[in-house]
Amino acid sequence: MEAVRTMLADKSADAIIIPSNDCHFGEYVPDYFKVRGWLSGFDGSAGTLVVTTEKAALWTDSRYFIQAARQLEGSGIELMKLKVAGTPSVAGWLHSLNVSKVIVDGDLFSRQEFLSLTRALAPAALEAVDDPFREIWKDRPALVCRTIVEMPENISGRSIADKCGAVAGKLGCKGRFAYIISACDEIMWLCNIRGEDIEYNPVALSYCVMTEECVHLFCHLDCLAPQARASLESQKVKLHEYASFRDFLRGIDASVTRICQSSSINVNNWSAAFANVPAGEEESHFMEDPTPGGSVAWLRSRKNPVELAGFRNAFINDGIAWVKLLKFIDENLASGKLNEYLIARKLIEFRSECPDYLGESFEPIVAWNANAASAHYSVTCEADAATVKPYGFLLMDTGAHYPYGTTDTTRTLMLSDRNDFTGRSDRLLQQMRDDYTLVLKGMIDLAMAIFPSGTRGSQLDILARGPMYPTGKMYYHGTSHGIGHHLCVHEAPQIRMEESPLVIDEGMVLSDEPAVYIEGQYGIRTENVITVVPFAENSYGRFLKFDTMTLVPIDMRPVNFKLLTHKEEQWLYRYNEHVYNTLKPYLSKQEAAWLWRRTTV
Amino acid sequence: MEAVRTMLADKSADAIIIPSNDCHFGEYVPDYFKVRGWLSGFDGSAGTLVVTTEKAALWTDSRYFIQAARQLEGSGIELMKLKVAGTPSVAGWLHSLNVSKVIVDGDLFSRQEFLSLTRALAPAALEAVDDPFREIWKDRPALVCRTIVEMPENISGRSIADKCGAVAGKLGCKGRFAYIISACDEIMWLCNIRGEDIEYNPVALSYCVMTEECVHLFCHLDCLAPQARASLESQKVKLHEYASFRDFLRGIDASVTRICQSSSINVNNWSAAFANVPAGEEESHFMEDPTPGGSVAWLRSRKNPVELAGFRNAFINDGIAWVKLLKFIDENLASGKLNEYLIARKLIEFRSECPDYLGESFEPIVAWNANAASAHYSVTCEADAATVKPYGFLLMDTGAHYPYGTTDTTRTLMLSDRNDFTGRSDRLLQQMRDDYTLVLKGMIDLAMAIFPSGTRGSQLDILARGPMYPTGKMYYHGTSHGIGHHLCVHEAPQIRMEESPLVIDEGMVLSDEPAVYIEGQYGIRTENVITVVPFAENSYGRFLKFDTMTLVPIDMRPVNFKLLTHKEEQWLYRYNEHVYNTLKPYLSKQEAAWLWRRTTV
Repeated sequence: MEAVRTMLADKSADAIIIPSNDCHFGEYVPDYFKVRGWLSGFDGSAGTLVVTTEKAALWTDSRYFIQAARQLEGSGIELMKLKVAGTPSVAGWLHSLNVSKVIVDGDLFSRQEFLSLTRALAPAALEAVDDPFREIWKDRPALVCRTIVEMPENISGRSIADKCGAVAGKLGCKGRFAYIISACDEIMWLCNIRGEDIEYNPVALSYCVMTEECVHLFCHLDCLAPQARASLESQKVKLHEYASFRDFLRGIDASVTRICQSSSINVNNWSAAFANVPAGEEESHFMEDPTPGGSVAWLRSRKNPVELAGFRNAFINDGIAWVKLLKFIDENLASGKLNEYLIARKLIEFRSECPDYLGESFEPIVAWNANAASAHYSVTCEADAATVKPYGFLLMDTGAHYPYGTTDTTRTLMLSDRNDFTGRSDRLLQQMRDDYTLVLKGMIDLAMAIFPSGTRGSQLDILARGPMYPTGKMYYHGTSHGIGHHLCVHEAPQIRMEESPLVIDEGMVLSDEPAVYIEGQYGIRTENVITVVPFAENSYGRFLKFDTMTLVPIDMRPVNFKLLTHKEEQWLYRYNEHVYNTLKPYLSKQEAAWLWRRTTV
Repeated sequence: MEAVRTMLADKSADAIIIPSNDCHFGEYVPDYFKVRGWLSGFDGSAGTLVVTTEKAALWTDSRYFIQAARQLEGSGIELMKLKVAGTPSVAGWLHSLNVSKVIVDGDLFSRQEFLSLTRALAPAALEAVDDPFREIWKDRPALVCRTIVEMPENISGRSIADKCGAVAGKLGCKGRFAYIISACDEIMWLCNIRGEDIEYNPVALSYCVMTEECVHLFCHLDCLAPQARASLESQKVKLHEYASFRDFLRGIDASVTRICQSSSINVNNWSAAFANVPAGEEESHFMEDPTPGGSVAWLRSRKNPVELAGFRNAFINDGIAWVKLLKFIDENLASGKLNEYLIARKLIEFRSECPDYLGESFEPIVAWNANAASAHYSVTCEADAATVKPYGFLLMDTGAHYPYGTTDTTRTLMLSDRNDFTGRSDRLLQQMRDDYTLVLKGMIDLAMAIFPSGTRGSQLDILARGPMYPTGKMYYHGTSHGIGHHLCVHEAPQIRMEESPLVIDEGMVLSDEPAVYIEGQYGIRTENVITVVPFAENSYGRFLKFDTMTLVPIDMRPVNFKLLTHKEEQWLYRYNEHVYNTLKPYLSKQEAAWLWRRTTV
């Protein structure tokens, strides 16, 4: 902290604001960028640290209040609880300290964030500087860069040139342009490559500039697998070293129109891109990406038939592993030896039996009873894991990467359908069954939805949430997220309460995951992955519906069928029948027999 | 048209844009403001006329393509079909004619519209002028102003002072301010008065300026009923002549913060309000109304218990008249003498039996078969009315004003449940029954909704639309609009597909009117009015639900009960039972007996 204050003095600054993200604004942050965690000791995924010449404070949200209080103890850093009455904003706090100059690492703030922070801090000045921790952070972890491989066209379904043509069409720019892309997953999609630089996300640290003539890819060239290099070169992608990106930006000719999303370019790169433009004329050489959420994200979210076929394959692989796991749990539950960690490992073991399995698509969640009431609970070692006893609910939310698709499935098991287990009254047991049924009802209602083209996620959300509302319960996360094609498991668009202009369109692959969490008792979430397919086209326009991709049986034993309509009940029976028929050819006789029993009542 | 071109020459302008609205931007426009209709001959409710030194063109939407083509014939005015490929925008068309100066009547453009038009027309200049037709339009209709009456506190439920306090709270402005209100219905609500200057809307032409000290009301003082004047004066409302409003605005001191909605103040009034502010400093003396949709509209939309009790009374009155009408239709259908016009008049006759009846709340719609496929069909004379024969559907959408509430009800009758009427195949008859049932299902599903506080209209909309989607049909209007308390039948908020930040909150009174329209065949719409009431409050927050206010029986004979869930069926039976029980005390023995038969299957 002393070194930070010396640095502040060197730069004649009164304060520095340190966010949680990296320079690409991805979901997971490489250790190299975890400055906030290193400086404060607080290692939660979300938090903003502000250090002034005399004070320091850290803002985080309710998920982390307890952890942050513990980790900040004795550090002299004040904990600022977001969305709690009386907590000042970062700008408000800095105003109260009468600061006159604030700095940030311009790599870690988007152009958009930087502008809004500038307004909030005025009259204090905000300045973006080059990474101010390069000198200070002595034992900083290295930037990891691993092999970059090609995603061949028989898996991606579309050539780079074809994708670039589609992007250019969305941008609608005439004349010379430079479309600057900073999001690594967008670059992987555009260039038909995959990396492994970020945990769970098969992306390489990279930048990209698409012009009217060609694509410039900036990555660690040493990491390019020979085949990937050959393929990129044969498709006329110009390869550059990752570190040369900013110099390239500085060299862009004044006459070129710079296009990007202000929300995804970091402010240092933004400045570099306008190096050749006279000061004050930036706006007339700039065009905001005209597609809400970004043109590449828009195109990527509508999967092509080859990608969709890959997803279907991935869900068969995953279904087989899940059936083995569910059978394993069934047969070993009484032993008293199952715990949350072991179950997560066991699923990875079963998945690994498929030679195509590449790894988990996110940190597996296996949570028993009260542990499942925290939506993002996960155990990383056996010592922390709860033993799974034969009562209550076991929630499992896990996903995998295959070369041709990514999966994400949640199942909640009611571990006993007897009503005599410890501490559970008949009334509570009935509530558990009803909650299980209403979550399932919401999942089914969204899956059965038929809707006109142009419908947005926020319009569909209530189909999944609505069934639970009459019990006076709700969940605080989204209902659905887009899923990458062997890419990030979370991508646009979303189905949630918050409004977004993105529409739910043909070819999209989305989760469907309503839930309920009863603090201190249990959590229930049932998640399938659905894809958008045509339903009808007539004088009223085009209608769409969902088709379910996930192939994991849904436990019908806890269902209170009185709460389901005839159509919902029919959907459930047919779904389980479909799971059985599709997976049977890949299962042993014993596994198939087990699945038959589980999918019929 | 020659006079217009002379005026353009006088003002050295190349073109004038003439919209459809008046200076208050209300739903209905007094004849005095119908310049566009007078000049072009086209009298549809929506259209923009542009006149240049040599050409003229009129933009209108698909509802009016046929009517406009007929009415513009021979006028030399080109018809521009909105949302049809190849139709230029107004600005695009003017650009193509190389105009350099365009004028508008600044009374008819909001500040917001004016700014966006200014941007669209650049580099051509846009200038707002004072009414340029005052001299030209020789036989212009007079501005009608009729009696203004008090709405006493035992009906409004809230004093003017109390309402002003609430508005000031929403504005959150410290220091001296002038909140400028231009919407007549907002002024009626704030000042607890009602007028009759606009067809169907019980409002007086008026302006209002609320300051930190008092309310200034600008209206035709001669029209103030003595009691209204006395009441306003006793409540310290400062009364001004309507015509003195602009001078008052010009006199506002520079130090005062002007507050308004840019979308509802006309640009001439805007300019007047900043007369004392140095040019270029307007923005620092201005505050946009911080409440989306406007602070008064926000407060008005949440009806107080006294207003809600009044609504309930109004729906009893209206229910009695409807029962008489439905019985009358039942008994006279076979005579062959019923027609659409007569039925509309008959309902007014039955409504008039209630001494409190003040008139219709909008132009009654009575439409038989194919006529009902146009969503806003209405006949204004008997000669245009179709004879209602005993087959197909009869759609009736009408509403009334009572001193204590406004109603709006739609019922669709299937005039025969035999399947042997002319030209109707069994298959079509089944489709008609199914469509009737699915519209009803949507109406019921929205009425049964339970949802958390903070839910927006766009999130609920699919509950009403969804049941029809599997048939590949939809309707192109909103599902719901707010209803004024003896005020405009259409007010904020809405439940519709389009996003709006307005939430559906306790006390709101809303329509619930899904529909289906089969061109050339029939239209079905079933509309109840619902109000938002508390459902539950717990650790998850506050939940709300709807309570239905309308008391008009729903015909169950055409219902295909196979398409309803048990809960929907139950809702329907209970609703009709409730209608019977509530209205019975007010009905004759014969009427009650008829209603008993109609509300039981």
